[in-house]
Amino acid sequence: MAEQITKREEDYSKWYNDIIKIAELAEHSDVRGCMVIKPYGFAIWEKIKDQLDKMFKETGHQNAYFPLFVPKSLFEAEEKNAEGFAKECAVVTHYRLKADPNEKGKLIVDPEARLEEELVVRPTSEAIIWNTYKKWIQSYRDLPILINQWANVVRWEMRTRLFLRTAEFLWQEGHTAHASKAEAIEETEKMLDVYAEFAENFMAMPVIKGLKSESERFAGAEETYCIEAMMQDGKALQAGTSHFLGQNFAKAFDVKFSDQEGKLDFVWATSWGVSTRLMGALIMTHSDDHGLVLPPKLAPIHVAIVPIFKGDDQLMEIKDKLQPYINELTASGVTVKFDSDDKKRPGWKFAEYEAKGVPVRLAIGPRDLENGNIEVARRDTQEKSVIELKNVVAHVKDLLDEIQNNLFNKALKYRNENMETVDSYEEFKQKVDKGGFYLAHWDGTAETEEKIKNDTKATIRCIPLEGNEESGVCMVSGKPSNKRVVIAKAY
Amino acid sequence: MAEQITKREEDYSKWYNDIIKIAELAEHSDVRGCMVIKPYGFAIWEKIKDQLDKMFKETGHQNAYFPLFVPKSLFEAEEKNAEGFAKECAVVTHYRLKADPNEKGKLIVDPEARLEEELVVRPTSEAIIWNTYKKWIQSYRDLPILINQWANVVRWEMRTRLFLRTAEFLWQEGHTAHASKAEAIEETEKMLDVYAEFAENFMAMPVIKGLKSESERFAGAEETYCIEAMMQDGKALQAGTSHFLGQNFAKAFDVKFSDQEGKLDFVWATSWGVSTRLMGALIMTHSDDHGLVLPPKLAPIHVAIVPIFKGDDQLMEIKDKLQPYINELTASGVTVKFDSDDKKRPGWKFAEYEAKGVPVRLAIGPRDLENGNIEVARRDTQEKSVIELKNVVAHVKDLLDEIQNNLFNKALKYRNENMETVDSYEEFKQKVDKGGFYLAHWDGTAETEEKIKNDTKATIRCIPLEGNEESGVCMVSGKPSNKRVVIAKAY
Repeated sequence: MAEQITKREEDYSKWYNDIIKIAELAEHSDVRGCMVIKPYGFAIWEKIKDQLDKMFKETGHQNAYFPLFVPKSLFEAEEKNAEGFAKECAVVTHYRLKADPNEKGKLIVDPEARLEEELVVRPTSEAIIWNTYKKWIQSYRDLPILINQWANVVRWEMRTRLFLRTAEFLWQEGHTAHASKAEAIEETEKMLDVYAEFAENFMAMPVIKGLKSESERFAGAEETYCIEAMMQDGKALQAGTSHFLGQNFAKAFDVKFSDQEGKLDFVWATSWGVSTRLMGALIMTHSDDHGLVLPPKLAPIHVAIVPIFKGDDQLMEIKDKLQPYINELTASGVTVKFDSDDKKRPGWKFAEYEAKGVPVRLAIGPRDLENGNIEVARRDTQEKSVIELKNVVAHVKDLLDEIQNNLFNKALKYRNENMETVDSYEEFKQKVDKGGFYLAHWDGTAETEEKIKNDTKATIRCIPLEGNEESGVCMVSGKPSNKRVVIAKAY
Repeated sequence: MAEQITKREEDYSKWYNDIIKIAELAEHSDVRGCMVIKPYGFAIWEKIKDQLDKMFKETGHQNAYFPLFVPKSLFEAEEKNAEGFAKECAVVTHYRLKADPNEKGKLIVDPEARLEEELVVRPTSEAIIWNTYKKWIQSYRDLPILINQWANVVRWEMRTRLFLRTAEFLWQEGHTAHASKAEAIEETEKMLDVYAEFAENFMAMPVIKGLKSESERFAGAEETYCIEAMMQDGKALQAGTSHFLGQNFAKAFDVKFSDQEGKLDFVWATSWGVSTRLMGALIMTHSDDHGLVLPPKLAPIHVAIVPIFKGDDQLMEIKDKLQPYINELTASGVTVKFDSDDKKRPGWKFAEYEAKGVPVRLAIGPRDLENGNIEVARRDTQEKSVIELKNVVAHVKDLLDEIQNNLFNKALKYRNENMETVDSYEEFKQKVDKGGFYLAHWDGTAETEEKIKNDTKATIRCIPLEGNEESGVCMVSGKPSNKRVVIAKAY
């Protein structure tokens, strides 16, 4: 199968599409900009979702569900938010179709069924949720509200790419309400930490936590925190955002609470989200020219076992011998697939599990059985070894941990090797085209930011939260700066 | 809190709304016909979803995700399906808003951004999915396809009721493709069995499995199987449907496969779904005038513990004493909430857990501690007893099983007591207004079905799958019939 995959060096973008195709993750639908997430891709998304959901609940959040549609009058209430999303809104204007009088079997929109007020298909749910919170919040006793929802959202995009940018995508959006600014900021930062922990410990993807510049903030936010990861082509990918919304939505929807002294004040808000875009990040962080590579913690199948057999007797013998080990692995949380399909050759299966990024593949035939051996292949390094069958459970469990760690360390090494400090704008301009993260001083002005973008197509990805204060001068304007920012080309 | 609940006898419909409100399950949003599912309601839905998802996977299905939008030309391809849903379609016609030139801060639909082809917000996904399956299926080797999706759908309803009938609702829809008619029918029946098992063993809600009459079939189906449950007012509620779609969608979307001999044939299809409507069924099957009653298997909290204390020392003493038991319960899968909130009185907490249907409530104060006792209250019968604290784990576990069984048996008894055979149409017409299921002979014609509906507002709920053949004559027309059907007023 690897021969069907374009090499990364040749065409990174084509390679990305080939991986998605060969691993059967997703495909374009006939609906402009909307994708079909195929079962194997969706199984990975379910692993992502289940883990994040657990982490949200452990940090005190509950799930709920709010309407898909936002009436236009609610949508426009928070002006900046509305302005930010207006250009990409799918709008429902009618609620009925009727038979086309001119063509039998065809339907037309019924002009009689025009909505009095148009409905926007949610591009994000602050408006509909804060309009609801208004009814839920009277006093400090009603706070905090810590709610998350898993939902589909629609942002009309002209240029789409599977997982990275689609008109409809799946995401989660947390929407919290607080009695104080400090508590809301604490929540914003806490959820950024949850995202960073998930990215690093589960996706095995190192991230830089930072703040967005004003021009890159979420529409309607006072401050946007983000995690930025480096893909294998050196480009940055924003993997999650957590917004401190101040009192903007509370003011737009008139949501006030009385504090312990009975004084009325507007409620403080946060929102935070990650989406199916993480699937793109996962693919581009680890995969190689042979197919998808998955960190064990997010792999739907941890171990594929390919028996090498002729006839049912040999298959049965192998199966009987392996069953206790399979049971033991399963009992300790390892997902095992024993592939006894006799219509596919072992070599074909090897290639399939390689393409699908299954972390560990075992192969065993009659001779191995005789010798008490089994072949172990790890997907990340493609190393093969033969081990004693009796040790297989402990070996596989250790190996899964090792693969998880190795993928993270490899990605971290790559990121660090492709991240450098730069002080001269000329040098930056020469280097930035080859990709990579550049740590540079910036004077903090929108003008300089704009100039960098226009000159190089690179953007200020974030102002890192961690990292020492350092006096310096902006590489573009020469004005003073006290911290380096991360600049890169981005997805 | 019970005083805020209208009695069932007074006004069943109002009682239903009161239960939803007091148990904080859901509320109407400001978007016409769309509901907000609140955290506690959503937690119950998550329990429903998780269990069904497990059962779907155990029967070989995988999840995937297909687009929210259906282009009009795809939507109208299967004519009967299109005709069935055309009247209730939300239609997206534009993809952009712009600033209103006449009113600052307001937005209008940008007339320049009209879609070439309108998009229907999916009322069901057969069209979009079969248009995709066309690309996936060439040969018998590609079959069966056994896919499910969890999604939101929109059917524009003029009269809405929380959970029972809303413009947007959450559901799952299974869509399978098969190489033979027999296999597709087997799948249709298998999934009906899954639904029935879920309804009876998890929701504790007895159901009758049956076939819909032709007029009640899903638009585009050859046969619709259903499960019908009786609510406490004697009305029927259709809780799930499984459709044998024949080759209708394969023909509409030209989906053919080559069989083992290389012969081409259209693919056979099924689809099956349950929705947030199940929440309504759950509420109306078990709840009483004191609030929600939940079967333990679907309760987000199994046991609420209310400590009765003055000051932190007493609270700590109770907590320390109970902690080992809480740990033991938790370890055996029982969800325990220890409610140490000192801003609410015990009586208030008792009422809250009663209203929210928590199956078991424990209360313990300093005197109980001294005597080694704890008070146990069960929600279903409202019985209270005092037991030895040292036995609490075994007692609670047994009690949860007992409550689960008791709720089912109680509902079954009610259903059976309110189901009767009837042979005279006059008798039927006299009785049907008081609710209940009527087993009557029907001649199988649409005319008779229509007459019954017009005369009484009752409908043929299903032709039961189980139940003996029995010769008789139609109670309306006097024509011969070989089986009784279930007739009732319905939600």
